[in-house]
Amino acid sequence: MPGAVYLVGAGPGAPDLLTLRAARLLERADIVFHDALVPDEVLFICRNSIRIKVGKRSGRLSTAQNFINKQLADAARKYEIVVRLKGGDPMLFGRAHEEIAYLKEKRVRVEIVPGVTAALAAAAELAVSLTRRGLSRSVVFLTPRSGAGERPNEWVKAALAADTVAIYMGAGEAAQISRALIDAGKSHATPVVVVENASLPDARRFFGTLGTLETVAAAGSGGPALILLGEVYRGSAIIAAWRGKQSSSSPTERATRSGRARSSSS
Amino acid sequence: MPGAVYLVGAGPGAPDLLTLRAARLLERADIVFHDALVPDEVLFICRNSIRIKVGKRSGRLSTAQNFINKQLADAARKYEIVVRLKGGDPMLFGRAHEEIAYLKEKRVRVEIVPGVTAALAAAAELAVSLTRRGLSRSVVFLTPRSGAGERPNEWVKAALAADTVAIYMGAGEAAQISRALIDAGKSHATPVVVVENASLPDARRFFGTLGTLETVAAAGSGGPALILLGEVYRGSAIIAAWRGKQSSSSPTERATRSGRARSSSS
Repeated sequence: MPGAVYLVGAGPGAPDLLTLRAARLLERADIVFHDALVPDEVLFICRNSIRIKVGKRSGRLSTAQNFINKQLADAARKYEIVVRLKGGDPMLFGRAHEEIAYLKEKRVRVEIVPGVTAALAAAAELAVSLTRRGLSRSVVFLTPRSGAGERPNEWVKAALAADTVAIYMGAGEAAQISRALIDAGKSHATPVVVVENASLPDARRFFGTLGTLETVAAAGSGGPALILLGEVYRGSAIIAAWRGKQSSSSPTERATRSGRARSSSS
Repeated sequence: MPGAVYLVGAGPGAPDLLTLRAARLLERADIVFHDALVPDEVLFICRNSIRIKVGKRSGRLSTAQNFINKQLADAARKYEIVVRLKGGDPMLFGRAHEEIAYLKEKRVRVEIVPGVTAALAAAAELAVSLTRRGLSRSVVFLTPRSGAGERPNEWVKAALAADTVAIYMGAGEAAQISRALIDAGKSHATPVVVVENASLPDARRFFGTLGTLETVAAAGSGGPALILLGEVYRGSAIIAAWRGKQSSSSPTERATRSGRARSSSS
């Protein structure tokens, strides 16, 4: 029985932000290979499938990509519906290219089911549009990460040129990000928001500026976090400060109290 | 009865690419204000609600934004669940900012339900990831459009700096886009894909280069189209040409035959 592999976006975390197509595939899947960060509430939908955790989590032990590729191809020989479930959308920072290329080479049928990516969930959480007429006509989604031996990652250039910036897998490197952007000429006063656990009940938002990004990012509890920056956040940062939405203490104070760097992944 | 307005992403067009949350809200909505481009199959889910078409479609008559704002606030005084349904994701090129600002000023409760944006559906359609380790670490979503009297839209700069580029609402201005990017130094050989009606049964993809973008974009039938460019498309363009996936004629021939510019919207 020749099976197919479905690369499915799990969305930002809230189970009801799965697409209808993703939910139906998960219900019918014979086997599901999922990232470590996919929450239990989402995995509950495929509770009758074989579930295998293969996800990578930055700074932790993870399954090597070529082993995941092989597992997917092997499963497609054995099962009809093989789901590879990835946090957010599979085509943004999901290493989908490597899986698709391997599976196509092995003549395994592959289909992609798009999902809601973290930046869109964070925008919804904040109720601040990523674009705005007259202020933001471009939004860049980027990561400062790159692997050993890869060509230089020109994320700083991309961040400087776009009106709104969404940085994935960056909260753990907030100090370096802040310094790199300021050194390249971005104003230290650029409004910044760090959104942690977007779409989940324990979602938190931390407001600040590029100059204070390190302490803003350190105020979180280490959940998946996204860094947003741009002029569209100026108003909401001021309103948040005024309403005291950051609790009674400033991010600086909290960060100093907790005194630790944050792991990051999105 | 104090109602709430839900700004809901309708996704790229396929009804099963709605999120579960969006589908449930549409089923329960008292009234739905929707864009002109939301397909009937999606609107079928809210067939028992009052449905009002307010959407803007480029180059056609459309409801003025401040009249939409007022209609939403009025509806929230009369109904419990008011849905503002927008193609794709509400926070990307959806004028959500204007509606949120107006509703908050009128003290109407607003919630945002994120959706699958067109670029992610197009990436799924193509089975080509927007990001790729060692090749693309940044993706910019932009539109060349700007309104009268707005500050200059620096989309060219943003497009040059990012590794992968997704251009919304640009297919009708393909000639100008191609010229502007080449004049600014982007190689005319940059691989380009135009994806029309992503996620729908009549989805089509047209491959080419930045230098031939005008004819590539003109090969479509005028449906909502997205322009994608970047090195990640080099392989798939070659494969498409080899397989003759662009039907028997080249985009150039077809464009010359049909001989008309395309309306565009996304």
